[in-house]
Amino acid sequence: MHKLSLEQRITSMQTLFIPESIAIIGASADPSKPSGQPLESLLANGYKGKVYPVNPKYNELYNIPCYPSIFNVPGDIGLAIIAVPAAITISALKDCVSMGVKSAVVFTSGFAEMGGKGKVLQQEMTILARESGMVICGPNCMGIFSAHNALMANFAVTRLPERTITDSFLGFISQSGGFGAACYSSISERGIGFSHFVSTGNEADLEFSEYLAYMIADTNTKVIGGYLEGVKDGVKLARAAEMAIEAGKPVLLMKPGRHEVAARAAASHTGAMVGSDRVYDALFKQKGIIRVESVEELNEVLNILVSGKIPQGRKVCILATSGGSGVMLADKCVEFGLEVPELSADTRNKLDKLLPDFASSINPVDITSQVMTQPALLRQCAEIILADPGIDILMLCYWAETLGEVEIIEQIAEISGSTDKMVLNLVNGQEEAARDTLEKLHDKLIPASRDGEYAIRALKLLTWYNEKKIGYGSELSFPELPAGAREEVAAYLDDFAPGAKLTEFQAKKILRAYGIPCTKEILAVGPEEAVEASAILGCPVAMKIESPDILHKTDAGGVMLNIDSPEKVREAFTRITAAAGEYKRDADIRGVLVQEMLPPGTELIAGISRDSVFGSVVLFGLGGIFVEVLKDVAMRIPPLSEIDTMEMMDEIKGKKVLEGVRGRLPVDKKALSQVLLRLSMLASDFPQIAEMDINPLLAYPDGVAAADAVIVLKA
Amino acid sequence: MHKLSLEQRITSMQTLFIPESIAIIGASADPSKPSGQPLESLLANGYKGKVYPVNPKYNELYNIPCYPSIFNVPGDIGLAIIAVPAAITISALKDCVSMGVKSAVVFTSGFAEMGGKGKVLQQEMTILARESGMVICGPNCMGIFSAHNALMANFAVTRLPERTITDSFLGFISQSGGFGAACYSSISERGIGFSHFVSTGNEADLEFSEYLAYMIADTNTKVIGGYLEGVKDGVKLARAAEMAIEAGKPVLLMKPGRHEVAARAAASHTGAMVGSDRVYDALFKQKGIIRVESVEELNEVLNILVSGKIPQGRKVCILATSGGSGVMLADKCVEFGLEVPELSADTRNKLDKLLPDFASSINPVDITSQVMTQPALLRQCAEIILADPGIDILMLCYWAETLGEVEIIEQIAEISGSTDKMVLNLVNGQEEAARDTLEKLHDKLIPASRDGEYAIRALKLLTWYNEKKIGYGSELSFPELPAGAREEVAAYLDDFAPGAKLTEFQAKKILRAYGIPCTKEILAVGPEEAVEASAILGCPVAMKIESPDILHKTDAGGVMLNIDSPEKVREAFTRITAAAGEYKRDADIRGVLVQEMLPPGTELIAGISRDSVFGSVVLFGLGGIFVEVLKDVAMRIPPLSEIDTMEMMDEIKGKKVLEGVRGRLPVDKKALSQVLLRLSMLASDFPQIAEMDINPLLAYPDGVAAADAVIVLKA
Repeated sequence: MHKLSLEQRITSMQTLFIPESIAIIGASADPSKPSGQPLESLLANGYKGKVYPVNPKYNELYNIPCYPSIFNVPGDIGLAIIAVPAAITISALKDCVSMGVKSAVVFTSGFAEMGGKGKVLQQEMTILARESGMVICGPNCMGIFSAHNALMANFAVTRLPERTITDSFLGFISQSGGFGAACYSSISERGIGFSHFVSTGNEADLEFSEYLAYMIADTNTKVIGGYLEGVKDGVKLARAAEMAIEAGKPVLLMKPGRHEVAARAAASHTGAMVGSDRVYDALFKQKGIIRVESVEELNEVLNILVSGKIPQGRKVCILATSGGSGVMLADKCVEFGLEVPELSADTRNKLDKLLPDFASSINPVDITSQVMTQPALLRQCAEIILADPGIDILMLCYWAETLGEVEIIEQIAEISGSTDKMVLNLVNGQEEAARDTLEKLHDKLIPASRDGEYAIRALKLLTWYNEKKIGYGSELSFPELPAGAREEVAAYLDDFAPGAKLTEFQAKKILRAYGIPCTKEILAVGPEEAVEASAILGCPVAMKIESPDILHKTDAGGVMLNIDSPEKVREAFTRITAAAGEYKRDADIRGVLVQEMLPPGTELIAGISRDSVFGSVVLFGLGGIFVEVLKDVAMRIPPLSEIDTMEMMDEIKGKKVLEGVRGRLPVDKKALSQVLLRLSMLASDFPQIAEMDINPLLAYPDGVAAADAVIVLKA
Repeated sequence: MHKLSLEQRITSMQTLFIPESIAIIGASADPSKPSGQPLESLLANGYKGKVYPVNPKYNELYNIPCYPSIFNVPGDIGLAIIAVPAAITISALKDCVSMGVKSAVVFTSGFAEMGGKGKVLQQEMTILARESGMVICGPNCMGIFSAHNALMANFAVTRLPERTITDSFLGFISQSGGFGAACYSSISERGIGFSHFVSTGNEADLEFSEYLAYMIADTNTKVIGGYLEGVKDGVKLARAAEMAIEAGKPVLLMKPGRHEVAARAAASHTGAMVGSDRVYDALFKQKGIIRVESVEELNEVLNILVSGKIPQGRKVCILATSGGSGVMLADKCVEFGLEVPELSADTRNKLDKLLPDFASSINPVDITSQVMTQPALLRQCAEIILADPGIDILMLCYWAETLGEVEIIEQIAEISGSTDKMVLNLVNGQEEAARDTLEKLHDKLIPASRDGEYAIRALKLLTWYNEKKIGYGSELSFPELPAGAREEVAAYLDDFAPGAKLTEFQAKKILRAYGIPCTKEILAVGPEEAVEASAILGCPVAMKIESPDILHKTDAGGVMLNIDSPEKVREAFTRITAAAGEYKRDADIRGVLVQEMLPPGTELIAGISRDSVFGSVVLFGLGGIFVEVLKDVAMRIPPLSEIDTMEMMDEIKGKKVLEGVRGRLPVDKKALSQVLLRLSMLASDFPQIAEMDINPLLAYPDGVAAADAVIVLKA
């Protein structure tokens, strides 16, 4: 069987989410149990299709007929819910296949999460799905629901909400059923409607990325949220993320595993294959997935997204009814990467005319408690600020009690509705009054929050997302390679055994073929050839041992720098080869590499690495102590765009070094970008490259050059 | 008049906080105005002393006699509340002084916050206070309250709470009245009782640090919170902080100004003198002040502190009813510096016996939704975990609905009460149920929260505070100085004019006198003397121009390194002096410093700087690109303890460099600590040193040495 494309999978999943009938294998009368819950809630929520409970123990359940076996069911079955013990789950699924059932949700646990025999059972399930074409959600899951057709094939969410402020807004996918249910509860309580909810379980067949793709394709769903511990197929996740940003649908994921302890627990929790968290993070940055830190943060972002607006820039004006809160908020804005610019003179003049003497029209604007006796101030000042073209976001911070009367909330709604700019309300005050105000604002889909830090973090995430989305449209344009480069490198690599380590001389051949600038060098097999080489290159030169058996050349006494006369070159050749022979008696010594001495430049590193989930990864960082001490490395997954390479340069902590420190000029970012793009092409063209390290890559105001390099092939 | 000690000020402030009678100058009948509010709330809350409204417009107010002037008041006045226009405030205060009034709260605005004439008026007020001995709160403030005597001398807080879970727990001081009132509202709503509340206003007399000291001395107050924009006298704040940590009373401050925009706004807001935020931060770290980021975070810390327990270590066990939430929390714990260690084999065995197969006894422990049908699991597992000696903190994460019945809350209370370890509850679930559960737990003074991140941040802050408090007991022990060092340096510095810049040779004399190791060096006035010097020191040597007019020696061509023969020394002398003469024609050239060449070591910087608020500051960091690009510098305020110096080394981002990278051995931290302690002594002994820079300070496995230094004296 061949692998289906993501698009084909989306089509198959319609049988799961829009079934015309449902059989519940192992249905029971107890709604507090997974076996009893779905029947109760399908009926209670008004699912329109046929429902067939299957259990030899009952004649009927909830006043509808119950069938002894699936073979007795009197009609076609679109979806089967499996709630039978693990031991008979596979045979139940086989029965489903034989009855032409197109999809199944398997609640049963006792599979890969148990290890050993459970793992084998799950593999059987995977093969069954692949061979039969039946799509399976689970096992070890809490199931799915879909709101528009009241498809309650789960035991996590039993009732559709009575009232939402926005219908079918959010699709949600969770790799933890219990936590997913907690998220559902917390989000839906705020009135945000779900289009779908999925507890993925062990993902024997359908995977997180596929549900994600389905919801992106679903016209009802506006935003997708989720809890992700890890995927098996990084490329599929990347593809789904691309679909999302192209469709303009924000994807908000909670992803634990930044720290080893959580990664360890997550791996044990789902038995999922978990790659390096740093690569997930890189993918998210690259493809515009919004990484949220908690369900609280997710709620804050949704709180803004339901308004249908997204912040169009980072420039915030804070308008507060107390000086202190304005100042605290301003600090937080800057901390999280927003700007709090000065207002234009015109804006300040207008504000000063309105405000009392003891107020302040400096951003953060302090309109003081004057607003309590003169509530119209809030609206008047807001209008003036929103007219300032230097402001993208207005943050209104006030006490709920100030707005006791409904008219002021109407005014805020009006202000908010009259502008494309973001108007965010921070409501202080007594709990009850504040909650009441928040609810009124939320009902009008106006962003309003009680916690300044969370609101600011949400604004930051969305400004980032918006910038990402705008930049994303630009097509990938790959640098042109020298003619025949691919063929040349392919032929060259063919000569090496799997797992081979290429020497500097060999690695640079490949780099040069792909147009990556390298030091000029000549391989000398004897002292006289070395002298000749130095004459061609011009003294001083660097000299390095060339041997596939010696990768750490310095340790072997195999590197000498700044050699400035023919005599010294001759002497160096002898000394280097002797030292290498001593270092490793039977080393295969190919000669000594005679190399031009590059002038001092900014030391960078660039390279390719492999991740177990995502495959090749392109790396970039500052060389030396920065990478060693601070692990200051940016990464992206091929194919890289020019924007990706620019973002990598902007992402490292020591980025100021690229701008030039200690009197140096800025490095040539265009040339650097070219190197990263060409590395990306190398990584894509030759997956057999397991590792490549250019260290150092020397950067100058007018170009870059690889001064040393190694390549390791996949074993 | 001489400056009173902090202890004397505390005594004087009793007249402000425990007055036997109060006059309200400018009292009015309108309780919505500052002039009307205090009288209403003093009477309504049952203030026991005499209250005398003063206003010629009324004969009586609220059924008590109102007096035309303070001179008509028929008894002694302890405290005067001033609510008259700015123009007549000073004369009102003078009247008070003449009537023997001991303290005043001035609501009136129109002083330093207005600049110009207002500033002059405020200076008059300051002088009046100093000369008369009357203590003044304000002007431009919302006043004070004190709970035990129902002293409502303010218009921010009008009613004492009907019910608290802990009385007189928190003293609160705010440099923003409005924000302070918002904090009061938010904190007291959780049932936390205030001992005092102060809106400091412009601090013409009483300052933030003095209120702080007062509350530390107050036996009722357990914890002090506050909103601080800046102080005028950093030393006083440091002294109050010392009193607090010695008294074991946590101080929790919100301090905006990390970023320039907030610092700018804060300065404009109160007209306060604001030092560098980094120095405040250093002081907080040094003296155990807990810096909280918002009133939300403050509330979270208080939520833990009311339990009377403080976490005794960083080792957290998470026990959650869903795998996902446990994993997310584990990630956050590590991110904020807590540990989530593996449980002992014994603990895991015991848990495994209790838990169902699909649960996990790995920390974070996932007890799954099994708890819904078997609620006793929570208590049983908690008891097992708390018995594990490797765990300091138990974090229970569950749905409120799980504990619907009161008995389980009783069980949690019992668990919590039976151990000195911290038990923190994270309550998920439907808003109403969760709030109900939280309230029940809070009533029993059990830490419980709805937001994991905030709870974890609070735990982190308190573990830090606890470690700080434990370490703090150790007395300061200063290194011994060479005999006569102080006198020698004092005499030497006397020869320099204010603002003088000391050369390397001069600066190192001072360093050596204080026992700070320096390179060996000899000042040579001619080429032959230089050759002689190099013979004494041994070649190779470094040679540097010595001129008070040339501080940037390298720029002037005034530095040559690795000079390895007498001829080259002679030549270098001529070359260096010639270059210096060319660089600056009339430079006063004293000769050339001939210096031993130190072997390569770890390049550090250390020095002294001055802050406008805190005076001398001792700095330490990694040299070169780290300090330039990352501003990776730690600072402390003299006198430094050995613990301070160790914390400085631990605080820098590049601290791994001190442990040895690239095959280097760790640097000699003891020797480094000695240098910082001796710099601290220099800074304390000679406040005329405005700046001192040791750059580089070379560190080795067995010692350190100053390779270059400059000193700048105060102008």
